Amino acid sequence: MFKRNLPTFLYGGDYNPDQWPADTWHHDIEVFKQAAINSATINVFSWAALNPAEGVYDFSQLDQIVTELSAAEFKIVMGTSTAAMPAWMVKKYPDIARVDYQGRRHKFGQRHNFCPTSPTFRRLASDLVDHLAAHYVGNRHIVAWHINNEYGGTCYCDQCQASFRKWLKDRYGTLEALNKAWNNTVWSHQIFDWNEIVVPNELGDAWGPEGSNTIVAGLSLDYLRFQSEMMLDEYKMEKTIIEKYDHQTPILTNFHSTPNKLIDYQAWAKDQDIVSYDSYPAYDMPTSRPAFLYDLMRSLKHQPFMLMESTPSQVNWQPYSPLKRPGQMAATELQAVAHGADTVQFFQLKQAVGGSEKFHGAVISHSGRTDTRAFKEVQKLGQTLKQIGPTVQGSMNHAKVAMLFDWSNYWALEYVAGITQDLDYMALMMDYYQQLYDRNIPVDIVGTDDDLSQYSLVIAPYLYLLKPGVAARLKQYVKAGGHFLTTMMAGMVDENDNVYLGGYPGPLKDLLGIWVEESDAFPPHQGVKVDLAGQNLNGSLLADIIHPQGAQVIGQYASEFYAGTPAITKNQFGKGLAWYVGTRLDSRSLSTVMDQVLLEAQIHGLTTKPTKVEVTQRITADGEKLTFILNLSNEVQALPVEFTKGYYDLITKQTPTVEMQPWEVAVLTSK
Amino acid sequence: MFKRNLPTFLYGGDYNPDQWPADTWHHDIEVFKQAAINSATINVFSWAALNPAEGVYDFSQLDQIVTELSAAEFKIVMGTSTAAMPAWMVKKYPDIARVDYQGRRHKFGQRHNFCPTSPTFRRLASDLVDHLAAHYVGNRHIVAWHINNEYGGTCYCDQCQASFRKWLKDRYGTLEALNKAWNNTVWSHQIFDWNEIVVPNELGDAWGPEGSNTIVAGLSLDYLRFQSEMMLDEYKMEKTIIEKYDHQTPILTNFHSTPNKLIDYQAWAKDQDIVSYDSYPAYDMPTSRPAFLYDLMRSLKHQPFMLMESTPSQVNWQPYSPLKRPGQMAATELQAVAHGADTVQFFQLKQAVGGSEKFHGAVISHSGRTDTRAFKEVQKLGQTLKQIGPTVQGSMNHAKVAMLFDWSNYWALEYVAGITQDLDYMALMMDYYQQLYDRNIPVDIVGTDDDLSQYSLVIAPYLYLLKPGVAARLKQYVKAGGHFLTTMMAGMVDENDNVYLGGYPGPLKDLLGIWVEESDAFPPHQGVKVDLAGQNLNGSLLADIIHPQGAQVIGQYASEFYAGTPAITKNQFGKGLAWYVGTRLDSRSLSTVMDQVLLEAQIHGLTTKPTKVEVTQRITADGEKLTFILNLSNEVQALPVEFTKGYYDLITKQTPTVEMQPWEVAVLTSK
Amino acid sequence: MFKRNLPTFLYGGDYNPDQWPADTWHHDIEVFKQAAINSATINVFSWAALNPAEGVYDFSQLDQIVTELSAAEFKIVMGTSTAAMPAWMVKKYPDIARVDYQGRRHKFGQRHNFCPTSPTFRRLASDLVDHLAAHYVGNRHIVAWHINNEYGGTCYCDQCQASFRKWLKDRYGTLEALNKAWNNTVWSHQIFDWNEIVVPNELGDAWGPEGSNTIVAGLSLDYLRFQSEMMLDEYKMEKTIIEKYDHQTPILTNFHSTPNKLIDYQAWAKDQDIVSYDSYPAYDMPTSRPAFLYDLMRSLKHQPFMLMESTPSQVNWQPYSPLKRPGQMAATELQAVAHGADTVQFFQLKQAVGGSEKFHGAVISHSGRTDTRAFKEVQKLGQTLKQIGPTVQGSMNHAKVAMLFDWSNYWALEYVAGITQDLDYMALMMDYYQQLYDRNIPVDIVGTDDDLSQYSLVIAPYLYLLKPGVAARLKQYVKAGGHFLTTMMAGMVDENDNVYLGGYPGPLKDLLGIWVEESDAFPPHQGVKVDLAGQNLNGSLLADIIHPQGAQVIGQYASEFYAGTPAITKNQFGKGLAWYVGTRLDSRSLSTVMDQVLLEAQIHGLTTKPTKVEVTQRITADGEKLTFILNLSNEVQALPVEFTKGYYDLITKQTPTVEMQPWEVAVLTSK
Repeated sequence: MFKRNLPTFLYGGDYNPDQWPADTWHHDIEVFKQAAINSATINVFSWAALNPAEGVYDFSQLDQIVTELSAAEFKIVMGTSTAAMPAWMVKKYPDIARVDYQGRRHKFGQRHNFCPTSPTFRRLASDLVDHLAAHYVGNRHIVAWHINNEYGGTCYCDQCQASFRKWLKDRYGTLEALNKAWNNTVWSHQIFDWNEIVVPNELGDAWGPEGSNTIVAGLSLDYLRFQSEMMLDEYKMEKTIIEKYDHQTPILTNFHSTPNKLIDYQAWAKDQDIVSYDSYPAYDMPTSRPAFLYDLMRSLKHQPFMLMESTPSQVNWQPYSPLKRPGQMAATELQAVAHGADTVQFFQLKQAVGGSEKFHGAVISHSGRTDTRAFKEVQKLGQTLKQIGPTVQGSMNHAKVAMLFDWSNYWALEYVAGITQDLDYMALMMDYYQQLYDRNIPVDIVGTDDDLSQYSLVIAPYLYLLKPGVAARLKQYVKAGGHFLTTMMAGMVDENDNVYLGGYPGPLKDLLGIWVEESDAFPPHQGVKVDLAGQNLNGSLLADIIHPQGAQVIGQYASEFYAGTPAITKNQFGKGLAWYVGTRLDSRSLSTVMDQVLLEAQIHGLTTKPTKVEVTQRITADGEKLTFILNLSNEVQALPVEFTKGYYDLITKQTPTVEMQPWEVAVLTSK
Repeated sequence: MFKRNLPTFLYGGDYNPDQWPADTWHHDIEVFKQAAINSATINVFSWAALNPAEGVYDFSQLDQIVTELSAAEFKIVMGTSTAAMPAWMVKKYPDIARVDYQGRRHKFGQRHNFCPTSPTFRRLASDLVDHLAAHYVGNRHIVAWHINNEYGGTCYCDQCQASFRKWLKDRYGTLEALNKAWNNTVWSHQIFDWNEIVVPNELGDAWGPEGSNTIVAGLSLDYLRFQSEMMLDEYKMEKTIIEKYDHQTPILTNFHSTPNKLIDYQAWAKDQDIVSYDSYPAYDMPTSRPAFLYDLMRSLKHQPFMLMESTPSQVNWQPYSPLKRPGQMAATELQAVAHGADTVQFFQLKQAVGGSEKFHGAVISHSGRTDTRAFKEVQKLGQTLKQIGPTVQGSMNHAKVAMLFDWSNYWALEYVAGITQDLDYMALMMDYYQQLYDRNIPVDIVGTDDDLSQYSLVIAPYLYLLKPGVAARLKQYVKAGGHFLTTMMAGMVDENDNVYLGGYPGPLKDLLGIWVEESDAFPPHQGVKVDLAGQNLNGSLLADIIHPQGAQVIGQYASEFYAGTPAITKNQFGKGLAWYVGTRLDSRSLSTVMDQVLLEAQIHGLTTKPTKVEVTQRITADGEKLTFILNLSNEVQALPVEFTKGYYDLITKQTPTVEMQPWEVAVLTSK
Repeated sequence: MFKRNLPTFLYGGDYNPDQWPADTWHHDIEVFKQAAINSATINVFSWAALNPAEGVYDFSQLDQIVTELSAAEFKIVMGTSTAAMPAWMVKKYPDIARVDYQGRRHKFGQRHNFCPTSPTFRRLASDLVDHLAAHYVGNRHIVAWHINNEYGGTCYCDQCQASFRKWLKDRYGTLEALNKAWNNTVWSHQIFDWNEIVVPNELGDAWGPEGSNTIVAGLSLDYLRFQSEMMLDEYKMEKTIIEKYDHQTPILTNFHSTPNKLIDYQAWAKDQDIVSYDSYPAYDMPTSRPAFLYDLMRSLKHQPFMLMESTPSQVNWQPYSPLKRPGQMAATELQAVAHGADTVQFFQLKQAVGGSEKFHGAVISHSGRTDTRAFKEVQKLGQTLKQIGPTVQGSMNHAKVAMLFDWSNYWALEYVAGITQDLDYMALMMDYYQQLYDRNIPVDIVGTDDDLSQYSLVIAPYLYLLKPGVAARLKQYVKAGGHFLTTMMAGMVDENDNVYLGGYPGPLKDLLGIWVEESDAFPPHQGVKVDLAGQNLNGSLLADIIHPQGAQVIGQYASEFYAGTPAITKNQFGKGLAWYVGTRLDSRSLSTVMDQVLLEAQIHGLTTKPTKVEVTQRITADGEKLTFILNLSNEVQALPVEFTKGYYDLITKQTPTVEMQPWEVAVLTSK
C-alpha cells in the first residue's frame, strides 16, 4: 500500500540537536530511549547551516547527528530544510521573499517566507535538496523524507502575477472564456489583454482581510487554486529530485491546521506517499474536532497516516495553554491512533533554549530532568505503544458514512457576499460530525472525487459550489441505493461561483425533489421554530423557503410567515433517499432528524446506548477487530455495556474494568 | 420646477441586459410589463464595453438595448458609465487610480476608483460622455441622464495634493491667512511655502482611520471640502458635456448612504435637476431612519425626488438580510413616496448570475419564475402605483418644523478631539427627529443657507461649527418670531474649527441668553438626573454647566455637584424663543421637553393621539391633500381616529377600515 | 543634591504666548499672578518660528516673551523646541522623518516625528540649541532647560538599521556571539554578515502590532535597547550643547505615560539633573496608579521631582473626561507633592484657540474669565502652595520597602510567546503596590542597579528576565537579612530571553529554595483554590507546580490535580527570607499573604488601622516630619486616629478636624 511501509510504529518527533553542543546529543538519545522513543525528525530548519553561502555545502554537523542517531538504531525522518530561507539568500535575492496581500515585499524573517513561483528560489531549493539526497541516499535508518514544512500562506508578487496569467491562459484558452467565467461584464471588468489581469489584493479587486469578501469571485477562487497548485509544484519539484536517488523511501510533507484553508489537501494527497499531520487542538475544542481532522487525514488516501507533530505537554502560541491533566496527553495521542495514525510524534523532543517556541512543551524540558510528570507520561505512553504498536500498525478504519468536504466549496462559501455574514463551513460540518461522533459511528471525510459506492450514507453540509460532474455522480450514487443529505446553500453555484439558473438547489433539484424560492437570514440569537411530527425543533442562521417537487415533507416551519411550509424533506430517488435540511438546527433538534436518517440508512454505531466515551475501531489485515475505548474526560466514565464481556485489553492485558478512569484508554480485542 | 418633469411616475430600476444574451431581453421586458414596470436604468457600468480601447467606441449593443426598451415604450434613465474604469485604462494610465489614506496607489479593481483631479481621467471620461450624448441625443424615451454612480471615497495622490495647494491659495490668498486659519503655531506647524502642504493621511498630519482624529482640524476640514468639490467638478464636467446636446432632459447623479459623510449633498443639490437617492435601510434600523433620509433628500431642493435604487427583496452586503415580510416591500417603498418620492426604482430588475451582487434581490430572480412571492409583490405594487402615481406625482410635502443638518458641522464635530469620544451627529439628530416622527409632525431637513422664515420651529442639535453669517441669520429668524432649539456643543467653533473666544456658545450666547462655563462628560451607562418642574428626567453623554444671562431656567440638574443649576433653558429673543438643552436626554425625558417646545411653537402633528402608524401628507398643485397612513409593522394597528370618517383610500378605492393589516398602506383624500 | 536647586517651589506650567497677540500677554500674566502662579514653561514647540529656514534664526518674539515674564519675576522653564520639526525641514530633508513599523517613511505632520539617528536631524537640532543657549545664557529667570518633549516612539529606517548593525557589532563583537545570543539556529536564522541583519518590523522578523510577539526575542530586545539609547543620545547631544554655555541651571526632559514602555527611564535618569513627569491619570484609574508613578519618578534619582505637566481641569484626548469634582484638582496635584514633587505645573496656562488640544483644560479658559470654578480652584491651590511650598521643598520621602521595576523585563515579559497571552507587567505590579498603598506603607520603585541594602523588603513581581549579576545581588541582599518576594515567571531567562537551563526559577532556585516543574495556565474567569493555613484563597492566570528544595510551604493548592502541592513558599536564606508566590492571587487573598510577609519583615504603615485616606510622609533636612493626609474621594472620610491629637495642619494652620471633607488634604507636623 505504501511505497515502502514504515518499518515499525514510530514514536519520537522533531529533534534539533544542531541547537545544542554535540557533546549533549548522546545523553539526549539515552534519555529518549528510556521513554521507548525510537525515531527522530531532523533537519527541518537547517538551510543556513547546510548551505551558508551560494554553492557552499557543509553536511559535517548533520553527518554527526545522523551517525549518532543511526548508532542508536533510531529511525530518521529526514527534513529537506526548505521551509525557512537563510538571511544571506534574501539579502542576495530580495525577490524570493513573498509579497503580501497589502502589496509589500517582505524582507528576511520568520519562516514559510518563499515565493512559490520564484525561479531563483526553485533553483536554490533544488540545489540544496539534490545535495542532501545525494549525500544521504542509502542510509537505511532514514524511513521517510519530509519535504519543507507545513506549507501555507500566499504570495502576491509580480512573478506570481505573471505565472497566474499564464496559468489562466492555460485554463481558459481565450479571454472570452475568462470574461464569461468571471462574469466580467459586471462593473465593467472585461479583460482585453492577459496582462491586464491583476492578482487579487488589497490594492486591486478583492476587499476585506485576505479577500474575505470578493468582487470577482472567479478571480479569487482561481488565485486560491493557483497558489495551492504552485505550492504543490514546489513540493513535487523536491520530491522528483529525491526520487532520482531514492525510489524506496516514502516522501511526504506535513499537513497542519484545522484544516489549512489555503492548501487543498485532497489535491495534494496523491503526491504524498504517506499523509502526515501536525495536530494542535486548542484547550477549549471539543474532542470531536481532532477526531474529525484525523478522519479527514486518514480519508485523504484511505490509509493510516503519521501523526507527525503534537505536543507532549503545552503549546506556547495559543491564547491559553492549560496543562494537560494526568493521563490526558496519552489519551489524546491514542485518539489519533484510534482514528488511523501509525505514528506518535512530538514537537519537540528537546525544548529550545530560545526563540519563539522555547515554551512549547518537549520530552526533555528546560530542567533536563526525567522525574517530571510530563516525561514520565511520555515514558508510559512509550510502553503502551510498544505493546500495541505491532498489532495496530497497518490496520484499517472502516466507515459506512462519509461526509463530503471540498476545498473549492470552502473557499467559495466563505468568500461569498451572501445574505448572512456567518457562513462557516467548518461549523456546520461539525454540527453533523458531532451527531455521528456522539453515536460512535465511524466516518470518512471524503472529497468530491472519492468513490461513494462503499458508503450507505453521504452527508454534504453547505454543498454550495458544485464542481462539474458532482451532481451527476451524487445522483448515480443515490439512484443505486445510497442515502444522501445536504442542507441550505446546496447546489447554488458552479466552480466559478456563477449561479446555476432556474432555481436553487441548481442541478440537485431533481435529486432532492424540491425547489428553494428564497432564504430568510437571522441575526444572532434569532431563529425559527420547526415542527417534526409534533416535536419542536429550533433552526437559526438561514431558513429556506422550500417548494416540494416530489419530496416528502418531514418537518415544517412553525413560526414566521412561512409557518407550515417545508423545512426538512426527503426524496426517494431511484433506490436511494435524498434529504434536505433547510435551516441550521441546534444539537438536540438535529439529533431528532439524524435518528431518522440513520434509521433509514441502517447505520449503527459501535455503541448502542448513549455513552460519554469515544469508541472507534481498526481492523487488521487478518480481520482482527481492535476496538479503542477512550475516556477523553477528566471524570470516571462507564465502559459501554457491550464491551463488559468477552473482551481483552491489549494495554492492561486484562479484561476491561467497567469503570474507566479519567483519560483511560483501552484497546480491546475479542477474547 | 424641473428642467423637464418626469413624464410619468416611474416604476422600474437598474437593468443590465449586457450581462445576458440578447435573445433573453425581449422576454425580460415582457415580464417587467406584467408588473406594470415602465422604466429601466441602463448603462451604469458599461465603460469597457462601449470603449474597449482608447479612442475606440462601440455602441452597437447599447443601441440594441435602447431599441428593445424603446419599442416597449419604456422610459430610459441613461447612465454615463464613468463610475468604473476599464482594466485597460488603469493599465495604460496607472495614475488615474486613487491613492488611499495609507498613501498607496491602487491598481485596477472594484469601482469608484478614479482620482477626481486626474486630467487623464477627465479627458477619457469627457470623451466617453461626449460620444454617448451625441449618439443618443434626441431619443424621446430617455427621461433622465444619470451621471456616474454613488459618488464617494477620497483620493490622496500627488495630483490631488497639487490641486489642493492651488485650491488653498485661491481660498486663503496668503500663507499668513492660511497659518492663522489652521492655527499653525501649535506644534510648530507654520507653512512658509505652499508646496510644504501635505494632504492629510496616515503618513502625514492626521491620525486615526481616515482622519477620525485630527491634528490640524483646518487641514482636515479643508481637504474634505476640497474633495467634495473636486467630485462635484467631475460631475459638472459630465453635465456640461451632455448639456451641449440636450437642454431638456433632467441630469442628475444618485445620492446614497445614511447619508454619505464625504459628499456635501447640500452643495451638490443646485447642480441636480432632480435629486435622486439609493435607499438601503438595514433590517435593524427604526423606520424613522429612512424617513429622515427621505426628508433630507426632498429638502435638498424642496422638490419631489427620485427613489433611484432600493431592493425588491434582500440585499446581500449587509451583515444579515432577513426576508422582507409579506407586504413589507411595498410599504417601505411607499414610505419613500409618502415623503416625496416621485419614482420607485429597484436595484435590480434582473438578478446577476455572478459577481459580488448576485445575491442581491431582483424582480427577475435566478429562478426566472414569476410565481414567486417577491415577483407577485412587485406586481401588486405596480398596480398600486399605477393607481396613485398620476395623482401623487408633483405633489408637495409641507413642514412647519425644520431640522438643521450641516456637512461642515458633521465633519468638524466627529473629527474633534473633545472631552468625549462619543460625538455622533446622526445619533443626536435622530433623537430629535424621532420625537417629531412619533407625533407625525412633518419636518424638513435643511442646510444653513436655507430660508428659515417659512418655519415655526428650527431644531439644530449639536450646532458645533457655525459658518460665517449663520449666527446672525438665526438671530434674525428668532427676532422675527421663530422658535429655535439647540443643544450642548452649540456655537463653539468657526468654519476652521477655531474656538469663538469669550465663552460658549460663542455667537449664540445672546440669542440663547446663557453662558456655558464647562461640560461634564459621562462614560457609557453613567449620567445625570434632571428636574423639570417636578418631573425626573435623565441626561447622559455631556452635561453643560450653564449660567443664565437672561434665559429662563426650565429644568435643573438634580444630581452631581452642579445639582440645582440649569440644564434646560429658554430665552425670549425679539418675538421668538430660543431653547437650549445642555445634556443628552433619553427618549422619555426629551418627550417631556418637546411637548413644551411644540406647544409654545404651536406645532401640531397630523395625528393628535399617540399612534403606531406613520402619517404624512403631500398636497397637489390643486390643493388636494393626500394623506399617507403607513403601518410599518408586522402587526395589526388601529387607524388614527381622525381618519376613520370622511376619507377615501386611493388604493382600495374605499373608505379606510379601522384596522390596518400588517404593512398596510392607505392614501387618503377627503371624500 | 541638584546641579542648582530650583530657587523656589514652582507653580505654573506650559504657556504659549506665541499663539496669541503680543498685546494680550501682559494681561495673561496679571491673571496668573492672581493665582499665585510664579513660573512658566515656554518655547516647547517653536522651532518653525525661531528657525523659519535653514541657517535663519529669529529670536525677536521669544525675546519679548522672556522680557515680559522676566519683568513679572516669573521663573522660566525654557524648552529647546526640538520635539516638532518644521514643515520646511521635512520637505527639504525627507529622510529625517521616521519610518514606521510598517516600513513607511512618514511625511511632515504631528510631532515627535524625527529619526533619532539621522545625522541631518542632529545637525539641525544642534544648531538650533546652540543658537538658543548662546542667546539666553545668563538669564537668571531661567530655572531649568527643558530639552525636547516627552521622548517616545520608534524609527525603523535604513539609517537606524545601519546604526543598529554597528551598535550590535559593538555589543557582540563577533557574529558567532550574536548568533548565540539570538539563538539563531532556530528556524535557520544564522547571520553570516552584519549587513544581513534586518530591523524588526512588520515586513521582517517580528510579528504582531509593533512586535507584540517576537520570533527572535534577542533582536526585538536589542532593538528596544538601541532605540532607547539613540533617543538618549539625542537628548545628551542637546544637553552637552547647553552645558557649553550654562553649567549651573538644571537640564532635563519631561517623562510621561504610565510609564512609557519604549524609554528606559532608569537608564535615562542619570542624565537628568532633575526628573520631571507629565501626569495624566484617566478618570477611571484607581488613585494608587498615579501614586505608583510618582514613587517611580522620585525613586529614579531618589530625589524630589518636578510635576512638569498636569491638567487644571479636563484633558481632551482620553475617551471620556468627566469634570474633576470640586476640590479634586488640588487634591490630586497635592498627591504628587506628597510623593515627592517639588513643583506643580499645568498644561496649559492658556487654552489654545485651535489645534488638537484646544479642549484640554487651562488656567485661562476660552471664556477668558476668572470667575470660573476651575480658575478659583487654581487660585486656592496657589495659596496653599505658597503656604506649604517653602517647608516642603527639598524634603525627602523615606521607604523601607522597594518594588523592583525593570524595563528589560517589561519588554521581554510582554513580548514573550508564553503559555498565556495575559502577561501584563503593570497589572501584577499594581496588585502588590495596592497592598502597600492600602496600608499606607511608603515604597520606592527601584531598578536592578539600585542599592537594596536600605530596604527591609524587596518585592519583585514577574521577575522573568534576570540581567547579569542581579541574582547574585539579590542573594547577597537576602543573605545579609533582607526580605525578598517574587512570583511565577521569575528567573526564567537571561537578558537575551534565553532560558536558564536546569529548571525554573533559574539562578534564583537556591535563594527561593524551590524548583518549578511546570505551570498551569487559566483562561479568563477560571482559576485555582489555595489553602493558607485553613484560609481559602483564590489564584488565577498561572499556577506553578512547585517542588520545595529547602523552602517552607506556606500555602498549598486546594483544587486541580496538583491540590496539596505548594503554591506559596518562604525560604530562610542567610539572615533573610525569600518568598515565592506561584499564582496570581486576588486582592483579598494577597492581603492575607502580605500580612505575613510584612509581619516577618517588620514593616509598618503610617497608619495602623484600615483607612480610606492616603497617608505619606516627607521629612525635611531638619528632620521635621510632614505627614500628608489625602482624602482622594468624593465622600467624607475619617482622619486616621493616630493623627487626631498632637498635630498641626500647615494648610489650615489649625489642629486637623476628625472629619475630612471630600478631596480635603492636610499637611501635618507635630505640634
